[in-house]
Amino acid sequence: MKICYLGPEYRQELLQAFAGPGTEIIARDDPNGPESIESVYEEYLSAALLMKSAPELERQGFDAIIPGCFGDPGVDGARELVRIPVIGPGLAGMLTAAGLGHKFGIVAPLEGDVRPTETLVLHHGYEQKLAGVRPLGVAVLGMNDDPAYTLDALEAVSRELMEQDRADVIVLGCGTLSFRALDLQERIGVPVVNPLRSAIKLCELLVSSGLSHSKRSYPVPPKLTLAPV
Amino acid sequence: MKICYLGPEYRQELLQAFAGPGTEIIARDDPNGPESIESVYEEYLSAALLMKSAPELERQGFDAIIPGCFGDPGVDGARELVRIPVIGPGLAGMLTAAGLGHKFGIVAPLEGDVRPTETLVLHHGYEQKLAGVRPLGVAVLGMNDDPAYTLDALEAVSRELMEQDRADVIVLGCGTLSFRALDLQERIGVPVVNPLRSAIKLCELLVSSGLSHSKRSYPVPPKLTLAPV
Amino acid sequence: MKICYLGPEYRQELLQAFAGPGTEIIARDDPNGPESIESVYEEYLSAALLMKSAPELERQGFDAIIPGCFGDPGVDGARELVRIPVIGPGLAGMLTAAGLGHKFGIVAPLEGDVRPTETLVLHHGYEQKLAGVRPLGVAVLGMNDDPAYTLDALEAVSRELMEQDRADVIVLGCGTLSFRALDLQERIGVPVVNPLRSAIKLCELLVSSGLSHSKRSYPVPPKLTLAPV
Amino acid sequence: MKICYLGPEYRQELLQAFAGPGTEIIARDDPNGPESIESVYEEYLSAALLMKSAPELERQGFDAIIPGCFGDPGVDGARELVRIPVIGPGLAGMLTAAGLGHKFGIVAPLEGDVRPTETLVLHHGYEQKLAGVRPLGVAVLGMNDDPAYTLDALEAVSRELMEQDRADVIVLGCGTLSFRALDLQERIGVPVVNPLRSAIKLCELLVSSGLSHSKRSYPVPPKLTLAPV
Amino acid sequence: MKICYLGPEYRQELLQAFAGPGTEIIARDDPNGPESIESVYEEYLSAALLMKSAPELERQGFDAIIPGCFGDPGVDGARELVRIPVIGPGLAGMLTAAGLGHKFGIVAPLEGDVRPTETLVLHHGYEQKLAGVRPLGVAVLGMNDDPAYTLDALEAVSRELMEQDRADVIVLGCGTLSFRALDLQERIGVPVVNPLRSAIKLCELLVSSGLSHSKRSYPVPPKLTLAPV
Amino acid sequence: MKICYLGPEYRQELLQAFAGPGTEIIARDDPNGPESIESVYEEYLSAALLMKSAPELERQGFDAIIPGCFGDPGVDGARELVRIPVIGPGLAGMLTAAGLGHKFGIVAPLEGDVRPTETLVLHHGYEQKLAGVRPLGVAVLGMNDDPAYTLDALEAVSRELMEQDRADVIVLGCGTLSFRALDLQERIGVPVVNPLRSAIKLCELLVSSGLSHSKRSYPVPPKLTLAPV
Repeated sequence: MKICYLGPEYRQELLQAFAGPGTEIIARDDPNGPESIESVYEEYLSAALLMKSAPELERQGFDAIIPGCFGDPGVDGARELVRIPVIGPGLAGMLTAAGLGHKFGIVAPLEGDVRPTETLVLHHGYEQKLAGVRPLGVAVLGMNDDPAYTLDALEAVSRELMEQDRADVIVLGCGTLSFRALDLQERIGVPVVNPLRSAIKLCELLVSSGLSHSKRSYPVPPKLTLAPV
Repeated sequence: MKICYLGPEYRQELLQAFAGPGTEIIARDDPNGPESIESVYEEYLSAALLMKSAPELERQGFDAIIPGCFGDPGVDGARELVRIPVIGPGLAGMLTAAGLGHKFGIVAPLEGDVRPTETLVLHHGYEQKLAGVRPLGVAVLGMNDDPAYTLDALEAVSRELMEQDRADVIVLGCGTLSFRALDLQERIGVPVVNPLRSAIKLCELLVSSGLSHSKRSYPVPPKLTLAPV
Repeated sequence: MKICYLGPEYRQELLQAFAGPGTEIIARDDPNGPESIESVYEEYLSAALLMKSAPELERQGFDAIIPGCFGDPGVDGARELVRIPVIGPGLAGMLTAAGLGHKFGIVAPLEGDVRPTETLVLHHGYEQKLAGVRPLGVAVLGMNDDPAYTLDALEAVSRELMEQDRADVIVLGCGTLSFRALDLQERIGVPVVNPLRSAIKLCELLVSSGLSHSKRSYPVPPKLTLAPV
Repeated sequence: MKICYLGPEYRQELLQAFAGPGTEIIARDDPNGPESIESVYEEYLSAALLMKSAPELERQGFDAIIPGCFGDPGVDGARELVRIPVIGPGLAGMLTAAGLGHKFGIVAPLEGDVRPTETLVLHHGYEQKLAGVRPLGVAVLGMNDDPAYTLDALEAVSRELMEQDRADVIVLGCGTLSFRALDLQERIGVPVVNPLRSAIKLCELLVSSGLSHSKRSYPVPPKLTLAPV
Repeated sequence: MKICYLGPEYRQELLQAFAGPGTEIIARDDPNGPESIESVYEEYLSAALLMKSAPELERQGFDAIIPGCFGDPGVDGARELVRIPVIGPGLAGMLTAAGLGHKFGIVAPLEGDVRPTETLVLHHGYEQKLAGVRPLGVAVLGMNDDPAYTLDALEAVSRELMEQDRADVIVLGCGTLSFRALDLQERIGVPVVNPLRSAIKLCELLVSSGLSHSKRSYPVPPKLTLAPV
Repeated sequence: MKICYLGPEYRQELLQAFAGPGTEIIARDDPNGPESIESVYEEYLSAALLMKSAPELERQGFDAIIPGCFGDPGVDGARELVRIPVIGPGLAGMLTAAGLGHKFGIVAPLEGDVRPTETLVLHHGYEQKLAGVRPLGVAVLGMNDDPAYTLDALEAVSRELMEQDRADVIVLGCGTLSFRALDLQERIGVPVVNPLRSAIKLCELLVSSGLSHSKRSYPVPPKLTLAPV
């Protein structure tokens, strides 16, 4: 099974460690994409690139595609264009968290990410399971500047989600944060969901079960035809 | 007041007829955009173009922007980039209909448009007011081929929305259909909302009231700054 | 276009300033009505008077009716009795706010107005868009005693709605407060909706578009017949 | 315990039969009220009369008040004016039905009563328990013209609610229909709720338990004071 | 009318005081049941015992069954096995509270009871009426150790529900607490619902009205048949 | 990784085929359990047995537990008693389906299973994603009597879910049906979710990611302590 992760190529090795035996993760970074995705504006820029790359990745024989941003930009459009699973980390993270407790909380990078994240939860149908979304207060490109500070801030905001919003499970709402899941889980004692890891495992679940998205939900656009199988 | 409508230029005159005294409608069609928008895939292509044009239109002195597709593609992203109102016909049509009756029904072009339209209703917070979405069964580019047939089909599907889904108001869920609103209203005897007309009037309402979207909901992306006023 | 505003006649000039070219606002105050409407009890007294006046106003040639209380008392009943739009400021204010941001907050006069206002939001189908309702702590008849104090109090409660309830748009939930919208907007930097102004503009939108409420939602009572057109 | 039923006096004996030992039902009919309540318009006329009678009934020593219309007209306003329970048959019927099965269906007199009844369900918070509302197709004043026909029609519409809307419990959504509950229950084999009977029993439940409505939900209007106890 | 209360036998006299004339309460305690029910685990142990006792109680001629735990353990299963009403105090308490005000708050014994109580509210369809659930911080078996302390704690947590969660009615979410309802109501001035008392009165309401649960919602299990009447 | 499936032992081999490399499935059938689970009554009998077996299975070194019934009987109680994941097929099937399309439909065995299945959907928070639940009309113990008939009936009811309820994904709501997923998927062309297969893959996802349920949602019952790790 070959899964294409659309994001920084230096993450390929880290992601491969999450994959099961027989799964190969290949990271591809679009040079025309935004440096980071921290706004709805950048999500649309990224989504338009996915409209071009998704059919090409299917033709190249990939078994699944993971757009590397928690906002799942363009996933519904890409699903119209291909037969293979396209799994956003946002959906995968929420799915996983929904099965582990009463309500989950999401840590977003900045205040400006809170409302789009709430909208994403609504879009995926998880509103009833949401305790709240709170911002970390650290921009995506600064998260690795001081890893110890970032982890302390993650712990603080997670405790707010637990104590003030009554979250029982934490979802890390950003690809860069996702690699801190186990460190944070050890500190706070509740499940912490790494959405990239969940996306990889969910792709494995689907592909190995012979499942992909429904073409009734994501039909082929009227002016196009899918490539022959 | 100058409002930019992003869509076919031949509609400029038709839309001007809806405007109040002192309002000028200017239609602009992006030559790089899709010929019609009949899929989520095409919505993303269109949205990416709006990310480029919106700030330029604000700089040119427009007072409001109307992206000419019922799916409101890219509206939330464009609102991050400008201070002037960006009003999608989908939102404007639902807003108008919500004030006129118990529940509204939406006529979408094709079966494949039904689910994205339902998602749009959810996104705008009008789920409780929705009676249902039903497809006309005519593709956007074919709607003007046989106008009499299109109107008959509109009447038939509207009556289904009224009788089977209990809609009390009809919203025409496509820019091309919108010009048939008064003809249809005369036939079926319930309010029929023309979303393009509503979008123009809503822009007038907002601009004349000194209102635009909240920058707390649509903050300036961290890497950008708005042009000085 | 002639719009009848049911409320204090001294407001006629203030409201006329909100109207577009060609619109005439005429204020009518029912001498049998309550001095102010600050309870559900007074809403019912006011609603019963509207049952009498609405058909008469239609006969007199008005094009729309605006009952001058944010609680929209009697609007659904009056719509059964006439063909012309009857637009409550509560509905108009929520409609407008719903298009400007993620969630809106409403400032009500007193603690006792909070629950009826929440019920009104539910009734109009805007529960998903509501951040919260908070009381100003000033009775309607005292709001003009100390305008500077009232504005300071408005700012304070609006900031609570923004910071504690995460409102991105503010709706002034009372006719008397509504005239402070632009002053407040300048102070707090988010859109502040004047529901009376919105009601006037919404009437203009509907009348100029050939729209009114659906008679399927508001049928003629079985024992009555509408006057011939 | 003395309960005042506001409705036709000839029903006093029928209602007394539903009361427990020690409860006296007294029917009072307001000569200024509408002959029947079959529209929202007539509900407002009726509600305004309740605003006058409720405080007087409390002063006369009644222990509870039941406005005799399924639409519960004016109940929230009357609760502001008195300390004793004011229980509408609509609320009582829904409360009872909600405890007996998965979802309930309501039989309304005419098509025009369907939407107000749906709004009442929303208002009382029972939307999740509602299977549907369907009209009997018989006006209130004609229900006793042909009792056998009315019962046959009740059976037919109840079966539609059960088979098409999946109702498991039936609520008779009109005072005049309510006396047919046991006859209908015998025919269709699912619980049929008589809302007037439920209103009487709910008053008994509350009064004997020392309960009444919360004055935080229904505060005394600012310009009034309650009579001393 | 004979009602079987499944719980400590020393409560029989206390409960009898809540019953109307002609109603006999008989308390039965299952020696194999858990000493108290303070977890979902113990609810399942208790529910399995109810599966055995319910049909036997119906055969013995009881007219209604009240499982003596606010979590209503096993009620839906028992309703499949009998024709007589099976009324849990949780349902009865919520039903009663729902009719008395805008939103109700529930006092649960311990933090660990909060989420199961929230789930119970969802299960019974009262989510829209719920202000919140807060823990008393006293285990069930310790509530009678220091009654004055328990009442003070009840008052404190009820005031939090009123002031922070905006509850207008309080429901005591535990059988042992329920006997303090009138004491607490006197202190806090809003209705306080005793769920055991409500359960008894609701049984009386149903039995005297000829009502029980719908066999369409709770059908006889395929492998069983009910005893002949 | 060792996963215990609680259900018929002859299924062990079939389930092992769904597991990834390194996962061992061990089926255990409780001789005291009901022959099949086709009622809420039998779910409670089964749940009580799980209360006893779950801690013992954790002590024996299992890494996850799958109760073999789509109704997930006792899962929340068992999660209080152990640290390892307890994953019901109902939850796993809904989780999987929720990620594949707009709305999913569930095929239940008999009419009497429809309402408990709807309640399960509500309990897990998937109400917004549910298109509908329809009965197959075949009892669990008869499903293997005529496999061709069962598959034909599955296709027929799935098409009803697709065409009448607008389901885009089908979930097989019963362990015995689950093995027909791929056959059915081939016939109807939309994703068909096998909940047992999903349960196994979800256990693998969680265990390999270091995740289990939150002990804040499922705390240790006050009277117990977990065995030392």
